Amino acid sequence: MNKNIKQYALGVDIGGTNTKFGLVNHRGEITYGGRLSTSAYATPEEFVDALYTSLLPAIESVGLENIKGIGVGAPNANFFSGSIEHAPNLNWKGIVPLASLISNKFHLPCSITNDANAAAVGEMMYGAAKGMKDFIVITLGTGVGSGIVCGGELVYGHDGFAGELGHTIIRPGGRQHWSTGVYGSLEAYASATGIVLTAKELLAEAKQHSMLHDYPEDAIDSKAVFECAMQGDELAKEVYRFTGQILGEALANFVMFSSPEAIVLFGGVTKAGDLLMNPVREHMEKNLLAVFKNKVLLMFSELKEADAAILGASALVWAMKV
Amino acid sequence: MNKNIKQYALGVDIGGTNTKFGLVNHRGEITYGGRLSTSAYATPEEFVDALYTSLLPAIESVGLENIKGIGVGAPNANFFSGSIEHAPNLNWKGIVPLASLISNKFHLPCSITNDANAAAVGEMMYGAAKGMKDFIVITLGTGVGSGIVCGGELVYGHDGFAGELGHTIIRPGGRQHWSTGVYGSLEAYASATGIVLTAKELLAEAKQHSMLHDYPEDAIDSKAVFECAMQGDELAKEVYRFTGQILGEALANFVMFSSPEAIVLFGGVTKAGDLLMNPVREHMEKNLLAVFKNKVLLMFSELKEADAAILGASALVWAMKV
Repeated sequence: MNKNIKQYALGVDIGGTNTKFGLVNHRGEITYGGRLSTSAYATPEEFVDALYTSLLPAIESVGLENIKGIGVGAPNANFFSGSIEHAPNLNWKGIVPLASLISNKFHLPCSITNDANAAAVGEMMYGAAKGMKDFIVITLGTGVGSGIVCGGELVYGHDGFAGELGHTIIRPGGRQHWSTGVYGSLEAYASATGIVLTAKELLAEAKQHSMLHDYPEDAIDSKAVFECAMQGDELAKEVYRFTGQILGEALANFVMFSSPEAIVLFGGVTKAGDLLMNPVREHMEKNLLAVFKNKVLLMFSELKEADAAILGASALVWAMKV
Repeated sequence: MNKNIKQYALGVDIGGTNTKFGLVNHRGEITYGGRLSTSAYATPEEFVDALYTSLLPAIESVGLENIKGIGVGAPNANFFSGSIEHAPNLNWKGIVPLASLISNKFHLPCSITNDANAAAVGEMMYGAAKGMKDFIVITLGTGVGSGIVCGGELVYGHDGFAGELGHTIIRPGGRQHWSTGVYGSLEAYASATGIVLTAKELLAEAKQHSMLHDYPEDAIDSKAVFECAMQGDELAKEVYRFTGQILGEALANFVMFSSPEAIVLFGGVTKAGDLLMNPVREHMEKNLLAVFKNKVLLMFSELKEADAAILGASALVWAMKV
């Protein structure tokens, strides 16, 4: 083994409730993993102290000198500034200089970026987009996020905030977003939250009985829609068809922007499989200019969801120019 | 003067009817310019011979050894392949290996790209986007084209065809495009052709007299709409307001993709000035996520339109890695 090559990276995925972390080797194997509560720490300093305590056994197991750095995926994290900026889902308000807090505590270089960008880097290093230089990752969970890679580089834009594809408008004058107030954005339809709203709209208009009618209204969540669709319920299947149509139209627009080799779909909503993928593909292809037709690989992430966020965050470390 | 630095580039802008060319120095000054017919030449070989004859005095005036290369902007030109591919507006059908034809004839390296990408490079080198690393140029002419720069590099996509923003869908189920057949694309509204269609639609519904009613229907072109709007005609002004709204909504989507520092609008349609710019700005801002609001510079190109295409094409040469 070449002693000059640092073989390990720490990957940290900060979510609103929990933080997952791991020690990752060059092959993308998580050799030590764990989690801690995010919301239990009132200040980012206390959180970083706790994170350090949790990771110390991992650091000691391989030696600090063999770890190249720490990569962190977090909501509203800005790669350029190294700060988390006004994250609505975290306790820590305002601008939190997380990268320097972590770097000072761990004595390691630290890069941070938002969750979807971390997922894109993870896909490029270890996943479905391995070896690709132009692709887009769309994360379909509670919200809709995206990480865009052009010419082998993540697109950050001039301020680090590029890639908010969930907030592009795909139905002008359409459904109002619960948080941004904008009408007709992709996230208002293609997120788990959007899927539940679509199901409730279809249920209110339905002329035929659906299994979803048997649920109390506040028990209808994306899991219920998924389970009913899997059992063949026509209305629940229609929810995915409609969602897939809107997502497919949005993807066509993204293709005409950056002409990616592939689009990788990631996150809980993708569990619907072909119920979602078939209409996505149909409506993407239908709206593409001829020169783009039948060229874009459309696929689900190959990474285990539990590991993907840690791998993606750790992959930021390999891209560090230090 | 350092004899090792090649001081000049040739810039060629190939249009369906005419081709303009010039000898350009490092400061973006066109020191020799001219034009020839594109459509008069049945084969690309004959065209390249004629182009060579036209440019020979320019080449001899500074010496071949002081010219770094030739940059060409042309419809459907692919930077990666060096070919014009299936250009509907040119006589030369199929795939034309233009860069190698030119390179062999001139004994100079040649880069080609599409017109809008050339415009973007020109803006970055000499125009409104000088010094910027993240911006988008939208060309508003007979059609709607775009050149996208992220992190200082043109976005070509995996196949060289990225940046077809005129074909993104901004009104799903809306106006059908006369050539692509797709419904509701930006070009169907924001091009000169789209503006005329909007004017005719508004005229057909109009309850009040408009100056445009005095034109025979087939005499209503984008120039007539512009002139009536400049004279204060309400219907003609409404055409620009509507066009600006649609363009503004589309620009909001582009901002959320790549978070550019600026968007530069270029081409004949921009003559409408504030009549267009005010609604564009209003509807772009209205549809942006908070993090992007009041940050994007929206401006018209500062380059003289007659020169911009040549400058843009020549600027490809300075980017050559030879």
